[in-house]
Amino acid sequence: MKLSTLLLFVLTMTSVTAQTAPKNIIMVVGDGMGPEYVTAYRMYNDDAATPQLEPTVFDSILVGMASTTPAMSEGYVTDSAAGATALATGVKTYNGAIAVDVNKQPLLTVLEYAKQQGRKTGIAVTSQINHATPAGFSTHNESRQNYNAIADSYFDAKLHGQFRLDVMLGGGWKYFKRADRDLVSQFQHAGYQYIDDMAQLANVKAQQPLLGLFADAGLPWALDMPGHTRLAPLVKSAVKQLENKQGFFLLVEASQIDWGGHSNDVAASMGEMHDLALTLTWLKQYVDQHADTLVVVTADHSTGGFTIGAREQYQWAPQWLQNLSASPETLAKRLLDSSDKVTLAESVLGFSLNPQEKAQLLEVSEKKQKAYYKVVTAILDERSISGWTTHGHTGVDVPVFAFGEGSEQFRGQLDNTDIAKNIFKLMGKTD
Amino acid sequence: MKLSTLLLFVLTMTSVTAQTAPKNIIMVVGDGMGPEYVTAYRMYNDDAATPQLEPTVFDSILVGMASTTPAMSEGYVTDSAAGATALATGVKTYNGAIAVDVNKQPLLTVLEYAKQQGRKTGIAVTSQINHATPAGFSTHNESRQNYNAIADSYFDAKLHGQFRLDVMLGGGWKYFKRADRDLVSQFQHAGYQYIDDMAQLANVKAQQPLLGLFADAGLPWALDMPGHTRLAPLVKSAVKQLENKQGFFLLVEASQIDWGGHSNDVAASMGEMHDLALTLTWLKQYVDQHADTLVVVTADHSTGGFTIGAREQYQWAPQWLQNLSASPETLAKRLLDSSDKVTLAESVLGFSLNPQEKAQLLEVSEKKQKAYYKVVTAILDERSISGWTTHGHTGVDVPVFAFGEGSEQFRGQLDNTDIAKNIFKLMGKTD
Repeated sequence: MKLSTLLLFVLTMTSVTAQTAPKNIIMVVGDGMGPEYVTAYRMYNDDAATPQLEPTVFDSILVGMASTTPAMSEGYVTDSAAGATALATGVKTYNGAIAVDVNKQPLLTVLEYAKQQGRKTGIAVTSQINHATPAGFSTHNESRQNYNAIADSYFDAKLHGQFRLDVMLGGGWKYFKRADRDLVSQFQHAGYQYIDDMAQLANVKAQQPLLGLFADAGLPWALDMPGHTRLAPLVKSAVKQLENKQGFFLLVEASQIDWGGHSNDVAASMGEMHDLALTLTWLKQYVDQHADTLVVVTADHSTGGFTIGAREQYQWAPQWLQNLSASPETLAKRLLDSSDKVTLAESVLGFSLNPQEKAQLLEVSEKKQKAYYKVVTAILDERSISGWTTHGHTGVDVPVFAFGEGSEQFRGQLDNTDIAKNIFKLMGKTD
Repeated sequence: MKLSTLLLFVLTMTSVTAQTAPKNIIMVVGDGMGPEYVTAYRMYNDDAATPQLEPTVFDSILVGMASTTPAMSEGYVTDSAAGATALATGVKTYNGAIAVDVNKQPLLTVLEYAKQQGRKTGIAVTSQINHATPAGFSTHNESRQNYNAIADSYFDAKLHGQFRLDVMLGGGWKYFKRADRDLVSQFQHAGYQYIDDMAQLANVKAQQPLLGLFADAGLPWALDMPGHTRLAPLVKSAVKQLENKQGFFLLVEASQIDWGGHSNDVAASMGEMHDLALTLTWLKQYVDQHADTLVVVTADHSTGGFTIGAREQYQWAPQWLQNLSASPETLAKRLLDSSDKVTLAESVLGFSLNPQEKAQLLEVSEKKQKAYYKVVTAILDERSISGWTTHGHTGVDVPVFAFGEGSEQFRGQLDNTDIAKNIFKLMGKTD
């Protein structure tokens, strides 16, 4: 065999490999997970007893970065709806749009296409299941704010006579059990199992559609859950429930990294990153045993203008974030009614307050949860030397991670729309 | 040929390819160039007349990201000296160290190893040539602050009887022509050509060692140079001067992205990014014609806690940064003596000031250049919706770019030390 012939053969092999459809596709969105969060999590997760910085699961799967801008008419900073639409459809749109284009026309999503091809489909998220990101993969609406209409569409808007989602796990009682409509009962009558407690995940029947709602809207913070996790068990259950000969498409969202960012609450965001890391560690083991599965992980944007180090200090001090026994928001709620605020705060934060911090806590001018939340996050920012520039989003490119079959397609610099385009291509969509 | 045999053959080929030494190695450091700067430059460079965001040269060469932490005893945020040492030697050290370890013992640098192997060596930077980054590749000192000793070592500390650097281009008159020692004359007597004006680059003799110093310390800002560039012509000249049968190692630094960050001067940093982009565009063309050349591009850290969007606004507005005819610092200097400050500022900034901005400018309490600089950068931050959290460094991972021979070795998540380790490996260093 001449070298040129060999090379041609190798190139052909590579090309064929690239076009094989992964049977199972799992798209994971870390909402708001800009590069700062991924780096900070490595430090937060660091074992101070060893002389090196331990790599995280993210470090073993990074393949590139993605730009996140919405439709040009919107400027350079996206919201989660336009971000989800780009990742799900390959088309840039206006902020607020749920899988519709700038003319409000519906766009085919990768989840819908997977369903059309005979795959099962699911969503496992820590927000309400009708929040912007899961909605952007699952349905179509001119506005993310139309929460009830989006919830209704999960039941009403069939795809070729079928429900669009076989598994739905997350929050959302207030949208699915409303005075005007009880979608939970409707799903149950249509054959869905319904559970409202994560403990019931152990007892669901395999191969039957599943609706699991575990909170009124978003789930509690990871820091407020036993073992500081709930995304990882949701995803394990979703995958087990979706497994079938035809394959599946699962959308996973670590929704609340973003919520921590919006509140400039670094401890909460690090807790969410840890829950995502546990999820990815399990998914890596899963792909090791199921080589026909592709996992792509990215963010829709970054949130808060979070920085590792601030105020002229060349330091970041995650040790003050590592021992919280509850979220800062929950601490704030409990502080409101506490007669010994200092003892409570020290107990939850895991360190002794200095006189200045005690004064900050005791001199809260307005006795409201929000005011206490602000004090607690300010103490943690000062201790950890974290910086913020906004309570909104920023425009920095986000990391892209991928592993499993077809993952080499996601290397290098991408646009968020390329991620959907690559997934469509891997599923064999030609136009 | 059986498939297994073929695969073995292919794997062997790949392995052999990976171990081929690139003849020429060009290491490019964008000092302070965190991911935000690379994303922001795409927007700054965007042609608003087209319906899409134009990709930049960076987008075509991204391969991964790198962590930047110094030795663990220093915490999680590096300075440029420890950053340069990691990139040059593969060893983490204390902040301030110039290619010495935590015990202040000298560490072999990739530039020194290239020289030992018979390659020519050079540096082309926009700082003084004895600044932390070029020094970290070229010499050894316990402190970056020992500028005179570092300059002296470029002449005194021979490597096997040879000068360590064949080409030195950048700033530094104050360190190389001192009252106590005239290093320029010494280099000239030793056979170096000396030039002190960039126009003379056109007339240097090929194949002869070259010292070019063009400023007292750092070069003027890119925005203050004709065509808003000076790194690109320096690098072209350095490469042409270094070309030889044995190959070369060139360290390039876009030194002043960082300086813009330290001053929270987004316009200056974007000007520096543009000069680096012009440099990389030329280097890509060079590698297209010289396939035996490897170019690796990264940053030592990010600076300023710069964010694209700030203060709750989901926008970034680079159009206010695109028409400056001089740097904000130069504008500030000129404002000090101007009798018509508003007209001058509007002329240099390229837009009309609103009443509030005029008031800011005219009501500067202290008539000093620094105060005017602060006002000008504040106006640009407000207009462009840029945020900052520090005048120091932050700890976020930095992008890694690579092209040419061996560039596939730099894919995925790296540590800054891996970059030196990979370059050593590509040069055949075995221990």
